[in-house]
Amino acid sequence: MTVPAHEPPFSPGLAGVVAAETAIGLVDGANGRLLYRGYPIVEVVKQGTYASVVDLLLTGEWHPGTVLTPAPVPPMVMAALRLLPASTHPMDALRTAVSVWGANASLAWPPTADQARELIAFAPSALAAFSRLREGLEPVDPQPGLDLASAFLQQLHDEAPDPATARALEAYLMAGAEHGLNASTFAARVIVATRADLASSICGAIGALKGPLHGGAPAEVLGQLDEIGTIDHAEAWAREKLAKRELIMGFGHRVYRAYDPRAAALRVVAENLPNRPPWLDLAIGAEEAILRVFAEMKPNRVIKTNVEFYAAAVLQGVGLSPDLFPATFGLARLAGWSAHVIEQAAVDKIIRPDARYVGAPERHLPQANA
Amino acid sequence: MTVPAHEPPFSPGLAGVVAAETAIGLVDGANGRLLYRGYPIVEVVKQGTYASVVDLLLTGEWHPGTVLTPAPVPPMVMAALRLLPASTHPMDALRTAVSVWGANASLAWPPTADQARELIAFAPSALAAFSRLREGLEPVDPQPGLDLASAFLQQLHDEAPDPATARALEAYLMAGAEHGLNASTFAARVIVATRADLASSICGAIGALKGPLHGGAPAEVLGQLDEIGTIDHAEAWAREKLAKRELIMGFGHRVYRAYDPRAAALRVVAENLPNRPPWLDLAIGAEEAILRVFAEMKPNRVIKTNVEFYAAAVLQGVGLSPDLFPATFGLARLAGWSAHVIEQAAVDKIIRPDARYVGAPERHLPQANA
Repeated sequence: MTVPAHEPPFSPGLAGVVAAETAIGLVDGANGRLLYRGYPIVEVVKQGTYASVVDLLLTGEWHPGTVLTPAPVPPMVMAALRLLPASTHPMDALRTAVSVWGANASLAWPPTADQARELIAFAPSALAAFSRLREGLEPVDPQPGLDLASAFLQQLHDEAPDPATARALEAYLMAGAEHGLNASTFAARVIVATRADLASSICGAIGALKGPLHGGAPAEVLGQLDEIGTIDHAEAWAREKLAKRELIMGFGHRVYRAYDPRAAALRVVAENLPNRPPWLDLAIGAEEAILRVFAEMKPNRVIKTNVEFYAAAVLQGVGLSPDLFPATFGLARLAGWSAHVIEQAAVDKIIRPDARYVGAPERHLPQANA
Repeated sequence: MTVPAHEPPFSPGLAGVVAAETAIGLVDGANGRLLYRGYPIVEVVKQGTYASVVDLLLTGEWHPGTVLTPAPVPPMVMAALRLLPASTHPMDALRTAVSVWGANASLAWPPTADQARELIAFAPSALAAFSRLREGLEPVDPQPGLDLASAFLQQLHDEAPDPATARALEAYLMAGAEHGLNASTFAARVIVATRADLASSICGAIGALKGPLHGGAPAEVLGQLDEIGTIDHAEAWAREKLAKRELIMGFGHRVYRAYDPRAAALRVVAENLPNRPPWLDLAIGAEEAILRVFAEMKPNRVIKTNVEFYAAAVLQGVGLSPDLFPATFGLARLAGWSAHVIEQAAVDKIIRPDARYVGAPERHLPQANA
């Protein structure tokens, strides 16, 4: 088929089309680099807190002492969460919480870092409240003095977590906070580019993250860790999987040709925890065994651990039910989404690509009075 | 600045980038054509009903006898609307209603025409209920036997509209139902492309339409009609505006070089109404006078009426407060959004453009233990 010279190429996934300039994150797959505002993710996760990462992504500067106090669920949001049936998908609950918050807050345009901080401070409380409500339990307020990760776990379980568990979740939130122009981040940027507000943009991003092609993977690693059971059994398990030509989840990545730097970051934190919980020992031991088997049985392929492997281990280890994993990923990504929304708002230009019409040629209705 | 050969061009608004193939609508600005599934908008609006347009956009076929029965607000959605303060932006109320509906409905993937019909059947009831609640009035259920446009007005005012008024609103809903790959439709397609559900996609679209660069214009025409007051005064008013080099809203369009076919469609319906309401007489008379003055004072420019002109006249005429205009536009567009969501879901490919990193070069955190 000959395409006229003036006809632009059709790019269904927009791969290779540059839709934004960003100073927030650099995803450098070829070299296994992920930079937040220029800082390598491993350094950020090792030395930072989630509050400092939120601050870094929103402001561009590193303020290691940053405090972001966990906020209780706003009463109107809590009332909305109480309406939802126990069968509600946690992503729908999170989206509804953000929608109600935005409806009540009458957010001014352009979006600001303070609006984002307000959202990030209550969103973990909202997800924890929903988790308790669907189990027939009363929500609890955040306990004063806890950071966002600890308060999320405390509000889930009505008990403050031990420091190693809290630190593992905090590392997860930091490692998931930003990853360039993925589908949810792009959705948020398209929405705010009409001069819509922060809540409208984040609702769209949460919606996009709900899709299994984007936010739905970490739970799949879990079955594996259950199957493996003990470190001793990991190598035999991996050999059997590869011999049967079955997929091992949590290894290999679309973008990263080297070791996924987020997996490296999570692992560094895990390895340095005092009183390392047994589930982390299993994850680390299983990873080593699986990588050994890959190197032996697939010597010509470079297969490295990806972030999903440790994400699943951490989220299960800190006591989250698997159906909360995608929404918890959303909590982490609120930081990156918000930073992108603020960045796109400054561009202040509507995003409106073209479509190619491939439908019926012009035709006519039967005359009503013919 | 030299750009390396492999570097794709940056297109901040994605203008000229073809992001979708669509068989739903053709926007042919050069020739003043808008086709719904191949049928010219003027014919569709003249002969159709909003229910038949929903059906046409969703299925591709013209079934003039299609019935879409207005549904009462689902109890959970109504409970959520009762939580919202009177100051809530109506777009936020609509977004929250759709979010709660989606949370409760556990919508399967891929999205279907039946899911869309369920949404389109209750959404006008939800917006009407919110409008009454914020005025301290109890919502009312749709009266049996009414079509979607009539039932929306009946639920707003607790009184069934006269046929001419109902037909004018129905024409508006038809004329606003679809307009190619605009920003909100694109947001919905980006979201569903991750295999997210219909409600998540529509929440994103509503968010994008909230932005004044996209859905915020029709209210601006209103002040003009108030200023004009009577047909006799329209010509002098227009002369004075142009002499003072002030903008006249509702004329000229980014895409359409000829008469906006949606304005033509609304006008045809308006002209053929029996017992034409006085506000429609004013709009038609004012339009004629303004176009005469444009032709005389700007003879070298082709300036034609756009859809906003009649949209504002119709929405005000049927008794909507101006701050309901964008959300009512959203009700109309639910048909097109849903059709695009179903079309994109069939492509089943994530939409993920690239970003160009323009931030800080790699730098390092101060060593915590240095």
